Formats: sequence, structure tokens, C-alpha cells
Amino acid sequence: MLAVSKRVKQTKPSYIRNILKVTQQADMLSLAGGLPDAELFPLDILTQAADELAQSPSIFQYGATEGLTELRQWLLEENGAAEDVLITTGSQQALDLIARSYLNPGDKVLCEAPSYLGALQVFDLAEAEIHTVIAEADGPNLAQLEQQLANYKIKLFYAVPDFQNPSGHCWSLSKRKAVASLLAKYNVALIEDAPYRQLRYQGEPLPTVSKLSSYAAFHLGSFSKIATPGMRVGYVRAKQALLAPLIKVKQASDLHSAQPMQLMLLATVRHPSFTEHLDKLTNTYRTRRDYLAELLQQQLSDKLEFNVPQGGMFIWARLPHHNAMSLAEAALRQKVAIVPGDEFWPSNHTPDYQAIRLNFTALTEPQLEQAVSRLKKALLQCSPMK
Amino acid sequence: MLAVSKRVKQTKPSYIRNILKVTQQADMLSLAGGLPDAELFPLDILTQAADELAQSPSIFQYGATEGLTELRQWLLEENGAAEDVLITTGSQQALDLIARSYLNPGDKVLCEAPSYLGALQVFDLAEAEIHTVIAEADGPNLAQLEQQLANYKIKLFYAVPDFQNPSGHCWSLSKRKAVASLLAKYNVALIEDAPYRQLRYQGEPLPTVSKLSSYAAFHLGSFSKIATPGMRVGYVRAKQALLAPLIKVKQASDLHSAQPMQLMLLATVRHPSFTEHLDKLTNTYRTRRDYLAELLQQQLSDKLEFNVPQGGMFIWARLPHHNAMSLAEAALRQKVAIVPGDEFWPSNHTPDYQAIRLNFTALTEPQLEQAVSRLKKALLQCSPMK
Repeated sequence: MLAVSKRVKQTKPSYIRNILKVTQQADMLSLAGGLPDAELFPLDILTQAADELAQSPSIFQYGATEGLTELRQWLLEENGAAEDVLITTGSQQALDLIARSYLNPGDKVLCEAPSYLGALQVFDLAEAEIHTVIAEADGPNLAQLEQQLANYKIKLFYAVPDFQNPSGHCWSLSKRKAVASLLAKYNVALIEDAPYRQLRYQGEPLPTVSKLSSYAAFHLGSFSKIATPGMRVGYVRAKQALLAPLIKVKQASDLHSAQPMQLMLLATVRHPSFTEHLDKLTNTYRTRRDYLAELLQQQLSDKLEFNVPQGGMFIWARLPHHNAMSLAEAALRQKVAIVPGDEFWPSNHTPDYQAIRLNFTALTEPQLEQAVSRLKKALLQCSPMK
Repeated sequence: MLAVSKRVKQTKPSYIRNILKVTQQADMLSLAGGLPDAELFPLDILTQAADELAQSPSIFQYGATEGLTELRQWLLEENGAAEDVLITTGSQQALDLIARSYLNPGDKVLCEAPSYLGALQVFDLAEAEIHTVIAEADGPNLAQLEQQLANYKIKLFYAVPDFQNPSGHCWSLSKRKAVASLLAKYNVALIEDAPYRQLRYQGEPLPTVSKLSSYAAFHLGSFSKIATPGMRVGYVRAKQALLAPLIKVKQASDLHSAQPMQLMLLATVRHPSFTEHLDKLTNTYRTRRDYLAELLQQQLSDKLEFNVPQGGMFIWARLPHHNAMSLAEAALRQKVAIVPGDEFWPSNHTPDYQAIRLNFTALTEPQLEQAVSRLKKALLQCSPMK
């Protein structure tokens, strides 16, 4: 049998993928995924955008690896920075392209702990050495961050400053500035992954960390959470010289991303009704967040500890008395899926504490109520840790 | 500045990409690309397929890494084999996923010489050691193939048996069988890349080499040449166990390929008029192939040596008297773009002979006539090799 590569062997498997068959059962309620609610997709706008494809037949030809010029221009205008932009097959691909462009096996990458599983998988595939810094409610622990940067030759720092997956944390302005200046001091490049940035339910947007950075920075954007994920359109914005190797890797990886998707996406976000759609989306998600938080507070406050996130898709709940993996298994038996916190630490790290991630965007309020009642049963069945 | 990875540094750059700005000039005629003719895209069918997207709103949600079930089923029915199929962002991505799944740095890969540049780039990125076997008109030189397999621990053999890019060669049935049995004898896996298989202008289809193989084999398919390339839908067919690591890598790379593109593609190839479209396409390309061959024969037979390929997109012409790179440069000055043969040998190999690749699918007959007349001028200006 053909032996698989070392990079594949050491890549962390995905818990969500492993339980996929179970979570797809009709009577299962899932708080596990990171799915937007399909009922809220802007289908009218998308249909109109699909109808207009035939007016631009050239998008059916091979295109530039960088992406569709009109979409790139729109993204650069939006930002106004002296940067360039590369369109990718979801922002996930941007992350993979950065890793392949800049990391040799053994290179050191710093991530928040907990961190997005998809990023950990990318760094595993790049055979990087993953270091962590504790994610606090207002951003990474600065003393530990400086210690890591000073003691190890860290090449890239991966972070989700806006409503992090899984913790929901949003970095404060002062921590954003402090991180930017520490990265500049130690010549460490930043990967700022911002898929949830536009899902803000309260407070004012803060500047991106990449904008505050004076050293190399990549800003990753996604349309999966605000438009639709199935179209797989994302992007990475950075200085042109930083993007050049990514373009070379992307050319060998897939030549370019699907052009009709890029055009449909542009027509969608430019549509006069898109702001209205976005308002409806954030209003619905805010209500669901509040509803889930209230249910947890009322019914499970002695078993779960959590903050209400200002945005994003998840409530991250610490378990003072229970083991997360055992709870996740008990929950599946009660027909509710959750993700145990272990999933968000690198393979060779032990989680700092027990926690679970609960999604509040995919289920309606009655479903959330039902899910929490099942979770409660699971918690009652699950013996507390000694 | 952030240092790029070793894999990127050693990846062969693309000549076509390097001359892109020049070839995009309005008065340039390009025989250099591998583009299908956009005028022949099945726009009516595609428009209808786009209109139907709204009837399947679930495709706008996140989907399975493996691809859309309906498209996968259709591809497996078409083939009827006890295999599985993974949908990729063009067959280029399938190649990259195989390399990342199975190759460690220093692993040995065998390619035909000349070979598809995009494959050489993928193997460079995987830091593989590339070996070559001479591509003859009816397939690889068998003695040299066996010698390579016997003397080196080759892990993968990459080949394009149907109307190879760049040579246009189509392997004979006896060589297909001989290669399959040699690969089984030495336990070497096959990557059969078949983007041109359906662009056959004469003769009967031969069995795929992967079907004749008893050892591990991947069959790569594309819709770029028969439907449209801008949608980026391709696939790889193989035994399920062989695809499992590819799925793991693809999940980290981009989660999945754009679902609306997969559905549109399926609706397109299933459309009752698609066969008619395919007939029109192959008839037009056959006429252009014949026309270019006639022009070259009449005007340049003392300077170029070539066979008329039975299918595909290219005439591969040997240059008995000229240097290909100098000719390509002289041609650009005459406003016609061609690809020098050097491009199709791995970075550290010297081409076995001087040659150029001429595309016949992208230009109309009057344009081909004009292009050959410019090429003739370039040949006259270019000093013969000593």
C-alpha cells in the first residue's frame, strides 16, 4: 500500500468530521458546527447575481491566479490601504497558502490557546512547531506573548482578534496596539484571520491589528459568515511582495478560484439590499446569542462558566466540574452535538482547562431550548471530575 | 523581510505567466496558451444551469469535502468502477493533493519528458526528486521506464496518456498494457492525468491506463476543456483508501470546492444538448488542427518537424536548426507568442532536443494564418544554431 506523507500522518483529525455521520441523523440537534443559518442566506440577491452571469461570458474562461480584477478592486477600495489582495477558495485557502509559502518543517508558529482547529491543521500540514499563548477575554496574555517571542524564533503569529473561534473573545484596543508593537519589535509576521469581524452584535468596530502593524501582516477575510459559505470565496490582503509567493503556490495548487463565484459574490455584496440583509442577519444572531446565554444562565449556571461574546458564532463555556470529552459523548447520546475544548489545542498540548464550544447561529430559538434541555440531561448523567 | 519557504524557492516559474503582460497586448496573437475557445463555451446551457441554482438553496451552505453527492454519483456511474471520487478545484488541485498526501521531501517521482509544466511545479513544491522517461509517439520508452523503476525507488509515475501536453502523444494500447504491468511489478503508483481525453479528433478511445492497472492508480479528470475552465471543477477517481488522505489535506486546504459550480457543471454535462455542443467543439478544433498543420507543412517544413496529433490542443514541433528560447523571443517581437520546449523539462534537466509548443484551439483560421506568417518572419530573423 502507498505510504502517506509525514505531514498527513501528523495532522490533527477533526472531531466534527469524525462525528459527522452521527450529527447528520435527523433527530440530532447540533451546537457543534460553525454553520450560518441557511434560512438567512440572501437567496433573492444570489438568484439575481446568478442570472447576470451570462452577461459576462469571459468569466467562464481561465482567469488570473490573483482573482477577478473587479472584486479585487472593490476589496482594495473598501480598505483604501497601499496593499494588494489575492482571492482564495475561502479564507481557509489563504491560511494554507501562507503556511506553504513561508514555513519550512520545524519553523515555529505561535497561536492563541484555544485556537481555530482549521489553522492548527494547516500548521500541522506545514510540519511547523506550534507554540501557544493564553487567550484572555481582551486578547492574548502580553507577558506570555513577549516571553514566547523573546525565547523562540517565532516566524508567524496566527490570531483571530474579532470574536475568536472558539472563545468568542474580542481584543481590546490597547491589546491590539501592544501586540502590533511586540510583533514589530521581534520581527514576527501576523496572520489576522477575521471571518467574524462583521458579525458584531454590540459596541463599535475596533481597528484591525494588521492596520496597526508596522511589520509584515496578512489580513484574511471571508464572505462565508455574511453571504454564503458554499461559494467558497475568501481573500488575503497584504503588501504585494508578501503575496507574490502565495500566488506562485496558488498557481500550482488550483490555477485560480472559480470566477463565476467571485462575480456572483461581488454582485451580492454590492447589491442595494445587502445592508438590509446584514442587519437582519445580525439581529437574528444577536437574539439567538441572548436566548442561548439566558438558557444557560438559568439552567446550567452551576455547571458552566461563560461570558456573552460581543459577536461571532459561539459561546465558549468552561466546565469547572466535568471532563469535556466525556460530556460531548454523553451529549451525543442525548442527541445534541457539542465540541469538546480539547479540539482547539494543538495535538501535543494539554488543554489548560475543560471547556465546550456552543454554536448559536444555526438553530432557532425553540431548537436552542430543546438543545439546552438535552445538554442538561447529559450533564446530569456525566460524573463530575475528581 | 519574511523569508519564503524552500519549496517555493525551488519551484519552476511559469514562462507563460512571465510573459502574461506581453501576451495580453491587443495586437498579440497567442499560440502559447492552453486555452479553449471562449466563443465555443455552451453559454445557453450554462445560463440555464445558473438559473436553476436557486432551486437548490442547500448548495450555498458548507458542504462535504468530498464534493456534491449528485456529481460524485454521476461520475461513478459514468465509470462503473469499484472506486470513489473526490471533486477538486480543477484537476490541478487533485495533483497537488496527491503530492501533499504521499510525497515527503526527496521522494522520487517519474514524469514523461517533456511533461506538463503544472505537474512539474506541483512536484517541485512537494520537494520531490523528479526523474524522467522519454515520451515517444506511442508512449514512454519502455526500456528506459523499466530501468528507472528498477534502479530508483520511484513512488509515483505521472503521465498524460491521451494527447499529452505538450507533445500531443497518445499512448498505444500495447504500451498502456506494458506500462500498467511494469508499474504493478515495481509497486509504483500511477497518476493518470486525462484532461484532453474527450478531445479526440480521429480513431477510437483506448482504455485508460488506470483501468488496466492492478496497483494503486489515480485517474484525474477535468471539465475545463469540454465545458469551461473558469468554473474550476475537476476530480480524481481512485480506490477509497487512496483518496482518504487527499480528503484530509483538502479539508485543511479549502474545506471543499464551490458547490454552485459543481451543481452547474452537473446540469451542463447532463443537458440533452451537451453532446451536440461536444460535437461542434471537436469538429471546430479538428478543422483548426488540420489548418495549422497544413500551414506549417506548406510554409515551414524545412524548419519544423512535427506529427499531427489525434486529439488535444497542441502541435509539438521540433526545431532541427534553431534554439527554442531565442525563437520564442524573436516571435514575441513579431507579435506572436509560443512556448519554448525548455519549459516542459524539470528545472535541473537539459531538454533532449529543441522544440516549441503551438496551440490550435484558441485562434480562428484567419488568426492562425496570420500567426504562422509572423512565426515565419521570426524564424527567418533567428540565426540557426551552430
